[in-house]
Amino acid sequence: MVIETLVASHAVGKGAEPDAVFAILKAANAATAKYGKGQVINASIGALYTEEEKFATLPTVEAYFRSIPAEELMNYAPISGLPEFLEAAIADTFQGFQPPHTYARAIATPGGTGGVRHAIYNYVEQGEKVLVPDWAWGPYHTIAAEHLRGTETYEMFDRDFHFNFDAFTEKAEGLLKTQNNFLAIFNTPAHNPTGYSLTVEEWRQILDLCKAWAANEQKKIILLLDMAYLDYAGDVEETRQFMRLFEALPANVLILIAYSMSKAYLIYGMRSGALIALSSSPEVAQEFERISAFSNRGVWSNGTRGAQRLLADLAKDPVLRSKVTAERNVYRDLLKQRSAILLEEARAVDLQLMPYQSGFFITVPTAQPRQLVEKLMSENLFTVPLKKGIRLAICAVPTYKVPGMAQKIKAALST
Amino acid sequence: MVIETLVASHAVGKGAEPDAVFAILKAANAATAKYGKGQVINASIGALYTEEEKFATLPTVEAYFRSIPAEELMNYAPISGLPEFLEAAIADTFQGFQPPHTYARAIATPGGTGGVRHAIYNYVEQGEKVLVPDWAWGPYHTIAAEHLRGTETYEMFDRDFHFNFDAFTEKAEGLLKTQNNFLAIFNTPAHNPTGYSLTVEEWRQILDLCKAWAANEQKKIILLLDMAYLDYAGDVEETRQFMRLFEALPANVLILIAYSMSKAYLIYGMRSGALIALSSSPEVAQEFERISAFSNRGVWSNGTRGAQRLLADLAKDPVLRSKVTAERNVYRDLLKQRSAILLEEARAVDLQLMPYQSGFFITVPTAQPRQLVEKLMSENLFTVPLKKGIRLAICAVPTYKVPGMAQKIKAALST
Repeated sequence: MVIETLVASHAVGKGAEPDAVFAILKAANAATAKYGKGQVINASIGALYTEEEKFATLPTVEAYFRSIPAEELMNYAPISGLPEFLEAAIADTFQGFQPPHTYARAIATPGGTGGVRHAIYNYVEQGEKVLVPDWAWGPYHTIAAEHLRGTETYEMFDRDFHFNFDAFTEKAEGLLKTQNNFLAIFNTPAHNPTGYSLTVEEWRQILDLCKAWAANEQKKIILLLDMAYLDYAGDVEETRQFMRLFEALPANVLILIAYSMSKAYLIYGMRSGALIALSSSPEVAQEFERISAFSNRGVWSNGTRGAQRLLADLAKDPVLRSKVTAERNVYRDLLKQRSAILLEEARAVDLQLMPYQSGFFITVPTAQPRQLVEKLMSENLFTVPLKKGIRLAICAVPTYKVPGMAQKIKAALST
Repeated sequence: MVIETLVASHAVGKGAEPDAVFAILKAANAATAKYGKGQVINASIGALYTEEEKFATLPTVEAYFRSIPAEELMNYAPISGLPEFLEAAIADTFQGFQPPHTYARAIATPGGTGGVRHAIYNYVEQGEKVLVPDWAWGPYHTIAAEHLRGTETYEMFDRDFHFNFDAFTEKAEGLLKTQNNFLAIFNTPAHNPTGYSLTVEEWRQILDLCKAWAANEQKKIILLLDMAYLDYAGDVEETRQFMRLFEALPANVLILIAYSMSKAYLIYGMRSGALIALSSSPEVAQEFERISAFSNRGVWSNGTRGAQRLLADLAKDPVLRSKVTAERNVYRDLLKQRSAILLEEARAVDLQLMPYQSGFFITVPTAQPRQLVEKLMSENLFTVPLKKGIRLAICAVPTYKVPGMAQKIKAALST
């Protein structure tokens, strides 16, 4: 008997493409073994590395985590998350910038991914589409596809490299013609992969559009903000000011925030985040809480308790918290230092970059990403191909290796 | 504007029922505060507690986990899981009892729940039903419902309290009339909640049925084994002997195993498990690996790296592993000691129990579970209501509090 497939119809053929990043990482390691660490630039890693190219941690976070009592580390957390963790996640997100007369509710999720999953699955009809920019974290498409939802893509930047309102509006209004449930994903501030942050003025315009669409009471307008890199984008005031604009939104406009401890606390592998809902309607906030708890139970049960305890305890201890912030700011400054060199050299050699302000990655637009990645790989510069460019993980490249990168890329593009 | 709901149509009204266990736990804590610990029996907790009613850990596991280097604790794991973890999960499951000429593949999941999710979502068509026994872990229904699948229930025990083949066969063949994809969940050994373990002979009969159904090549027969309590059910030989029967199954019969570190290593809150596929067909095993990796990426990304590292390192270190086994066996024996008292007293007062052999819970059948739970609660004995009985968490009750429990329940049933 020849069995071609055992899975249900919707799962047939799923996941056929091999993981490109893994292959690149393997090649980078092989090159390091052959030529020595000094000769290889590995800009393919999505985690923060020190100047010595070691995995970076926040020492206070690490020490505290290791000291958490066994029961708090190893026992089950409640399905929705430890209540103090949920409060702490909300507080950590808004830090005083939650607008008045809004209701915020949170549910624990494995990293930001889990929150994106709940948002897409619970707030978009099967077969319908989620709106994402052309420059975007790849898994948005995977998460939608896994749940039999699609994605509609708009050009994120206009010719002057500003947020492309025309493209956004056209695609959004196209979806709104056929869908009552509309969900758009924004990864900001410090957008993955470009490093762009929407301005307060751009937020104002986006929200004006949403309010106009919401005048049709049948429409359910959901904005999902993936803010994984929030704390590397600047100080509290500059990164959170736009949140004030979420005041007095209609009840059929819902703000969802995918909160993640992964980058903010450098504990990616502990899988701790939360999905936060912000609404002017207590009923909408409560509905979110209820259906999300059901989804938690129906997908992964509960979250990593140790990481929840860590955040909850940090929230109670301003001294500890300020130590963590200081340690994180060291890396924020380091990112700034590394990126400043690349940005300056790019200008000097006239290498076009996508607009970077902050964050882990810098991107170079090109119509032939795979060719460029291959060419750079042959020169021991390891990067990741995207649909419309390549991604440089400035988060993983020590400062002393940054000089010359821009020129190398410029040269590779010119040959 | 009055907005009744913002969610997609399938999610409306989801999760309306409050969590019964949480309310009971709260009542138990209130009673303890009021009457003192000695006067209260809290048999509602689903985790192992010591004789001092403290959260139980395996000291070697705890010490090792705390010593894991930061990168292994905090960096991302690969999407599918650390390769050494996946190998270790397969080895830990079969321990020499994997039948020859079979292919085993694994994928990391958050606890056993994540594995159940992948199995139900990927191997059952939307709108179709999964077969579960009437005595079952409640979340199977939630996981199916979350993914727009249903459940069909069969009476697990016949009048003599043996596995009810007639009921199983009738319901299974009913589903097979309308579904090509057939998935039945077995929680064994040390079934949650009864503590029953299917015998080798019962497994033989189940597999004979599956083979007969598989003669129709259109049918895809999936058995999902939830083995969360495996290591509390006896020694390696007695708990794993039945696995030998999975030899030479047709290619359209697939064995899926939800492996969990939660109970085996007492690290419930770290959310580490794996879904393991066992097949006679390399293609079926490979398809499993591919679609499950996609599902990981599309739901929660990756798993808790620290727990994966722990299992991978234990697999390499026989001395460390035997220390863990010895520590776990202390609790296995403790469970035996606690349950022996309850079983004996139940016989003495003629209290009917469901057939218990091993595991964390003992169950009492009754047509009025809620009333019985309430009545016992008023006597400071806290238990959890099920559909057809009540659950006593012998895992959480210290030995000295067990005497008298059976009599108390018998009396409550008789009034």
